[in-house]
Amino acid sequence: MFESLRPVRFAEVDAAQIVFFARYLEYCHDALEAFFGALEGGYPHMINVRDLGIPSVHAEIDWRAPLRYGDTARIEVRVAQIGTRSATFAHRLYRQGDNVLAAEVKQTVVFCHLRALGSVVIPGDVRALLEAHLEAPKG
Amino acid sequence: MFESLRPVRFAEVDAAQIVFFARYLEYCHDALEAFFGALEGGYPHMINVRDLGIPSVHAEIDWRAPLRYGDTARIEVRVAQIGTRSATFAHRLYRQGDNVLAAEVKQTVVFCHLRALGSVVIPGDVRALLEAHLEAPKG
Amino acid sequence: MFESLRPVRFAEVDAAQIVFFARYLEYCHDALEAFFGALEGGYPHMINVRDLGIPSVHAEIDWRAPLRYGDTARIEVRVAQIGTRSATFAHRLYRQGDNVLAAEVKQTVVFCHLRALGSVVIPGDVRALLEAHLEAPKG
Amino acid sequence: MFESLRPVRFAEVDAAQIVFFARYLEYCHDALEAFFGALEGGYPHMINVRDLGIPSVHAEIDWRAPLRYGDTARIEVRVAQIGTRSATFAHRLYRQGDNVLAAEVKQTVVFCHLRALGSVVIPGDVRALLEAHLEAPKG
Repeated sequence: MFESLRPVRFAEVDAAQIVFFARYLEYCHDALEAFFGALEGGYPHMINVRDLGIPSVHAEIDWRAPLRYGDTARIEVRVAQIGTRSATFAHRLYRQGDNVLAAEVKQTVVFCHLRALGSVVIPGDVRALLEAHLEAPKG
Repeated sequence: MFESLRPVRFAEVDAAQIVFFARYLEYCHDALEAFFGALEGGYPHMINVRDLGIPSVHAEIDWRAPLRYGDTARIEVRVAQIGTRSATFAHRLYRQGDNVLAAEVKQTVVFCHLRALGSVVIPGDVRALLEAHLEAPKG
Repeated sequence: MFESLRPVRFAEVDAAQIVFFARYLEYCHDALEAFFGALEGGYPHMINVRDLGIPSVHAEIDWRAPLRYGDTARIEVRVAQIGTRSATFAHRLYRQGDNVLAAEVKQTVVFCHLRALGSVVIPGDVRALLEAHLEAPKG
Repeated sequence: MFESLRPVRFAEVDAAQIVFFARYLEYCHDALEAFFGALEGGYPHMINVRDLGIPSVHAEIDWRAPLRYGDTARIEVRVAQIGTRSATFAHRLYRQGDNVLAAEVKQTVVFCHLRALGSVVIPGDVRALLEAHLEAPKG
């Protein structure tokens, strides 16, 4: 399991004064950027130098509690499944102050070459990182 | 079925030069704002005057094709299910130029009082609007 | 003078419940995208096909009144000055409902080739468009 | 002088592949949030509990160099002037990797009560913090 913190920023709430629902996916992406930070050069190097992107193809989201300005999200990243060219993550977002579960997100990404635009076999170093965080789903 | 157009804006792509995946939910929300425009005062009136919000509690998203700067998303909004206090929408996002399906989004919202923060029974005028767009899922 | 409308969107306010101050520049940019819509293929064609961008080099902004969710901004775009490779716009943002001036923005952009990354002489069709909206500043 | 780091995030570039110009103000705001972090409860406490906001009334921005995905902005915050109810900041944004100056931003804010919506005299603890970072402009 990999963990990442993300304070809610001033401009991230909506007219209902809670973090805009679409931003939960942005928070998950930030956590994934941090997750891939373990690789040489991190996620920017994947994108800018290796032309290796991870477009999402599927996600399931359960919003369970609101986040407000002043809260910090603690995001737990787990790898639920690793395919040849794809991987599925299971994220949990907690409201750090009171440890309330704010959302669960299951997200499947495909590894793609950003210029050729086709899927690619997951490179060895990326696979090793994913495997290090693979967890059997809890019963 | 309700239809809404949303041109991709200059700042909405990411470092992979396609519309950032989380924005698809934002596009669906914009379409819902337009959908509720049929009510007196529209969505702003719901939020600002009636204190009636629609936080999402569940969504399933399938991303099928990228959107780029210069594309316009055509969003089809359908109501798939109406409960006492919740409703489920089935959105389809098309790339308007070539009519390619860019994403399918199933989104369940709960009707809430924004100050009391609890769920409420769907008001009559809102229910009538939802019912007018209720469609049995295609077989 | 060119005019463009921009409804405040649900997610564009901040934790103080007014449109986040940086978004005023985004609204001006949206108005400029619309302004260049008069050219063949519009702003996307400039960016995607002609590799012609307009990075800002200078701006002065006076925020005069808040915008809230439910408001629509009416943006007046004027061309204040045209150089060989640069142009200065004078934008005025009004709150459409009560016609209150919400902001004044003076913005200087340089015409650049997006791949070569250097400045370029303003192309003829672009210059003609700018000249059509050139206005001597009011005394 | 107060200093704050801000990595460019994946979704913050635009279709020209550089950080969208309006985001520079967002980066400055993030730096100000960090700056006010020295106060009890930080900026969220100012906004949520003390109802004390700092709407911008004026800014002058000079964009000098682009930021790209993979860059980190280092933002230097200086207080240039302190009034009774307002303050002027002088921000410098540097591209951390090569220490190139990316932008200079002069920003004047007014201290306001968020509910009463009028300006207020700068509270003592806030004034003390501002004074601690007051710097005479360089000749």
